[in-house]
Amino acid sequence: MFAFTRKAQYHETDRMGVIHHANYVKWLEEARIEWMDRLGLSYRAVEDAGVVSPVVELNLRYRRPMTFGDTATVELRAVRYTGVVLELAYTVRTADGETALEATSKHCFLKNGRPVSLKKELPAVHAALSEERNRDNEGEERI
Amino acid sequence: MFAFTRKAQYHETDRMGVIHHANYVKWLEEARIEWMDRLGLSYRAVEDAGVVSPVVELNLRYRRPMTFGDTATVELRAVRYTGVVLELAYTVRTADGETALEATSKHCFLKNGRPVSLKKELPAVHAALSEERNRDNEGEERI
Amino acid sequence: MFAFTRKAQYHETDRMGVIHHANYVKWLEEARIEWMDRLGLSYRAVEDAGVVSPVVELNLRYRRPMTFGDTATVELRAVRYTGVVLELAYTVRTADGETALEATSKHCFLKNGRPVSLKKELPAVHAALSEERNRDNEGEERI
Amino acid sequence: MFAFTRKAQYHETDRMGVIHHANYVKWLEEARIEWMDRLGLSYRAVEDAGVVSPVVELNLRYRRPMTFGDTATVELRAVRYTGVVLELAYTVRTADGETALEATSKHCFLKNGRPVSLKKELPAVHAALSEERNRDNEGEERI
Repeated sequence: MFAFTRKAQYHETDRMGVIHHANYVKWLEEARIEWMDRLGLSYRAVEDAGVVSPVVELNLRYRRPMTFGDTATVELRAVRYTGVVLELAYTVRTADGETALEATSKHCFLKNGRPVSLKKELPAVHAALSEERNRDNEGEERI
Repeated sequence: MFAFTRKAQYHETDRMGVIHHANYVKWLEEARIEWMDRLGLSYRAVEDAGVVSPVVELNLRYRRPMTFGDTATVELRAVRYTGVVLELAYTVRTADGETALEATSKHCFLKNGRPVSLKKELPAVHAALSEERNRDNEGEERI
Repeated sequence: MFAFTRKAQYHETDRMGVIHHANYVKWLEEARIEWMDRLGLSYRAVEDAGVVSPVVELNLRYRRPMTFGDTATVELRAVRYTGVVLELAYTVRTADGETALEATSKHCFLKNGRPVSLKKELPAVHAALSEERNRDNEGEERI
Repeated sequence: MFAFTRKAQYHETDRMGVIHHANYVKWLEEARIEWMDRLGLSYRAVEDAGVVSPVVELNLRYRRPMTFGDTATVELRAVRYTGVVLELAYTVRTADGETALEATSKHCFLKNGRPVSLKKELPAVHAALSEERNRDNEGEERI
């Protein structure tokens, strides 16, 4: 499991006094990109190779509001990776360890607008994602 | 069914050249608020009565990218309303009628941070939402 | 003078209860693009011709806060256009006609990352911008 | 001088491939809040005391585009502080030390919607801001 920490920003709040629900989607993206960086898979390098990885599915369960000044930790696990599809699960926690959000995302990989197999296009990325998925699923139930 | 139309903005695109996936969450909110307005239920008036309606769940299926200059139509249906929980379904369509996004959202109602029954707190809002839900479900399967 | 109207959105508010100051920058962009559209100069077409028009300068005077549900009118005037540089002035007004924001922006035109003269690159756009600047400056002091 | 570092995020880019110009306004806010935190002046505590500090003026000079994956350093100096008005100057630098943006902001202090003197309302905050302004202006020309 990978964990990414960031502060909840003032400009992310809304008039209800809490972080606006759309902003968590950006936090998940930030965690995802940081996770890839730490795996040695710069998302910028992936895009420079002509491969993009759009989000095809996103599911969010808002458990507890966060607000400006709070520190959020986004935990990320690779729950499924087939070479063609990647599924991630996230838990956003407050500084107290309380669950603020649970989420999953699903991604495909495209080159020139067409689905590609990462195994062929970017074998090093493929190997790292496969290993990460295995590590994240050891001793854990699939979510 | 309610339909809300808006342009996809330049500032909503990302370096992939398309609308960033987080921005659709804002479009759904805009449609929801506009829908309440047309029902005669100003969300601002609801908040002025001390009631807030946070999103507790959000599910998004990205079908087709949209980009700057495109005109998006957000179709909205009330699929469930119990007095305590409201569930909405959305289809975002391109100008050609193609599906760009399918989504559902789930909302509760809070006063002073505690769940309330709209039936008691805001009976006129309750009546309008109940009627709308009935209208949207006539002759349609639940999604 | 061109006027563009749009609603202040919930997702644009912050915990102070008003529209977050960064969002007005987006409103000015929306007005600018709409203004170009009405001049017959689709910004998308300009970009398709390989020309981009980045903002090089932005000055904002916040006069009065706006909030969710307010209707904003962005008035836009072309105050200077030289073929290489475009300067615009904006007044954002509330529904009551009160000034919420005064702003100016300055833009250049780039092709392949280098400054270009619109007169040569896109003569029709050049002619329309020149005419608009003349119209906006007739009988008005420069701001 | 205070320096604040953060990564340029994917969700902050636009279809021109660079950070959208509205997002720098958020970076300046993040730097400002972090600066106050390090002075021991939590902006959250200031707001909890009923004092808000809206932006009344903002001037931005965009020098060089930044993009996803870049590391930005926001340098911040207090150039003027009168007890009633605070003026800050910022330089956003790339990892190479190049200037990406120069900016200034002006802030007032309000309680219950009316201007207040920080010297009376929050003397500790007043003392810290005065000292910081003096430190930032020593040996430097006013900008």
